[in-house]
Amino acid sequence: MFNFSLSSNKNQLSNEILYDLIIVGSGPAGLSSAIYAARKGLSVGIIGDKPGGQVNDTSSVENYIGFEFVTGEGLAEAFKKHAESLEIHMANDVLVKSIEKDDVFKLIANNYMTYQSKTVLIATGSKSRQLGVPGEKEFYGKGVTYCAICDGPLFKEKTVVIAGGGNSAVEAAIDLSKIANKVYVVHRSEFRADKILVDKLYQLPNVEILLKTQIKEILGDGLVNSIQTTGELDGNLLTDGVLVEIGYVPNSQFADVEKNQRGEIIIDDHHMTSISGIFAAGDVTTEPYKQIVVAASEGAKAALAINEYINNL
Amino acid sequence: MFNFSLSSNKNQLSNEILYDLIIVGSGPAGLSSAIYAARKGLSVGIIGDKPGGQVNDTSSVENYIGFEFVTGEGLAEAFKKHAESLEIHMANDVLVKSIEKDDVFKLIANNYMTYQSKTVLIATGSKSRQLGVPGEKEFYGKGVTYCAICDGPLFKEKTVVIAGGGNSAVEAAIDLSKIANKVYVVHRSEFRADKILVDKLYQLPNVEILLKTQIKEILGDGLVNSIQTTGELDGNLLTDGVLVEIGYVPNSQFADVEKNQRGEIIIDDHHMTSISGIFAAGDVTTEPYKQIVVAASEGAKAALAINEYINNL
Repeated sequence: MFNFSLSSNKNQLSNEILYDLIIVGSGPAGLSSAIYAARKGLSVGIIGDKPGGQVNDTSSVENYIGFEFVTGEGLAEAFKKHAESLEIHMANDVLVKSIEKDDVFKLIANNYMTYQSKTVLIATGSKSRQLGVPGEKEFYGKGVTYCAICDGPLFKEKTVVIAGGGNSAVEAAIDLSKIANKVYVVHRSEFRADKILVDKLYQLPNVEILLKTQIKEILGDGLVNSIQTTGELDGNLLTDGVLVEIGYVPNSQFADVEKNQRGEIIIDDHHMTSISGIFAAGDVTTEPYKQIVVAASEGAKAALAINEYINNL
Repeated sequence: MFNFSLSSNKNQLSNEILYDLIIVGSGPAGLSSAIYAARKGLSVGIIGDKPGGQVNDTSSVENYIGFEFVTGEGLAEAFKKHAESLEIHMANDVLVKSIEKDDVFKLIANNYMTYQSKTVLIATGSKSRQLGVPGEKEFYGKGVTYCAICDGPLFKEKTVVIAGGGNSAVEAAIDLSKIANKVYVVHRSEFRADKILVDKLYQLPNVEILLKTQIKEILGDGLVNSIQTTGELDGNLLTDGVLVEIGYVPNSQFADVEKNQRGEIIIDDHHMTSISGIFAAGDVTTEPYKQIVVAASEGAKAALAINEYINNL
């Protein structure tokens, strides 16, 4: 007899199994939570885009302790391999459209499948808000960056433009003034940052502040070499890079749980959302530090909390 | 002219520099915070025992995402190497005796040196908890041990009792079953360890599990030869050694900051202790999950919070 099976891969997520936990999102938070949950003996599924998530889009990672220097793809691969070494069922390149609560949770996916689980962990991360100007996409990773903490050291003894006027932008400017030769802060309106930070910024000799000025285009030749601006300063500004610090957009639209004004999911001390049985971890939550090691830790902690929740059901 | 210098090593902690941050402790929390702080442009020192901390004493690590399987020593080495790639000044095999607050913080060390810093991060971790039974102290190093990796080989082809029911105890039992002739796991209640580990333990032919059983006394004649038990098993059990794996006591005695009943340091959302300018992170704090990835994350977050604190000074 022939054995026809659409899910011959032992690690493939099945719509016929009721899982203890399905994790939505396969970035550092999702994969780390899967590892911890599987080691606790829970049946675990993951529905995600690409294993490793945003880590794949990072040129290099130098602040995840243990990996002195690794490409984003290399670290994402190490994370994926680690998760695959355990019995974790995955559906990659799949997005969850909505979560319905019945006796169990039903996750409706864009592959026309419905998956079932006793608990759900939302770990879909967030994406950086973009300026939406010509050259921004083209020069991403070639001078354009969205992460001061990750890529700040790249601007050592160079000139850098920071786009933004909130706390993150001003803090990034203060930090980068210690590393770079010259820092421009370009913001379309007035500062929204805390006064104490703005006051400090104005005292820094190698920082120039351009308010009511908009970046119109990012220019370069292989790498960023200048920006075109309009407004208070209308012209061309030479720079080695552009750090865009204008906030994040959490990937939380599909989830009908309580969020803050920015769309970040609100969780309690046990990583539980406003709906009992639905948990969240990592960049999609109100956790202020959007870092790989933090997401991995939050995922691990959420898995331990979910295990305790299931033991108590 | 000869150049006499006591601190010829560029990475050696100096008592002549006023650091932005001195970290007390060089485990995962301490080293991760040092990496983040140095990358922020802060001048950073570490005073610690052994880089990698307790990770060194662990036989293998399988849940730190990115490292599918690594020895404790291997992971500690990777952490150390990562920190050493940055300009971080270290004093190894040194303990801090007390912290005094003047214009700046003064850290009095047991090497007769006093180091100075604008901020302090306490990341001293925790140490093994003792059973507190007669014979435990007497036979320490004569059959009683708290370190499976260090002393495991001593029990080659012998009989050993492991006290405890958490992950460390069960992992130690699995490791020792490969070396020893006979392993007893004695625990006063039920297992708290991961199911995956407990299942594995029950499959091992030379492991005997005694739950709801307490060790009353450790007996011997020069070396351990038996234990006296009470509970489910009430009697005398012949053994060549006792490996105690029942948790940890935080290394917080030297620090005059607010703590909970267990001696764990209480911190706020910004990792600040009850003394402004003194921060804490990792196993020494009230953080409930004593995991490597959690400590690394807490260290990173503390460093970012400290950077913000310094920016606001």
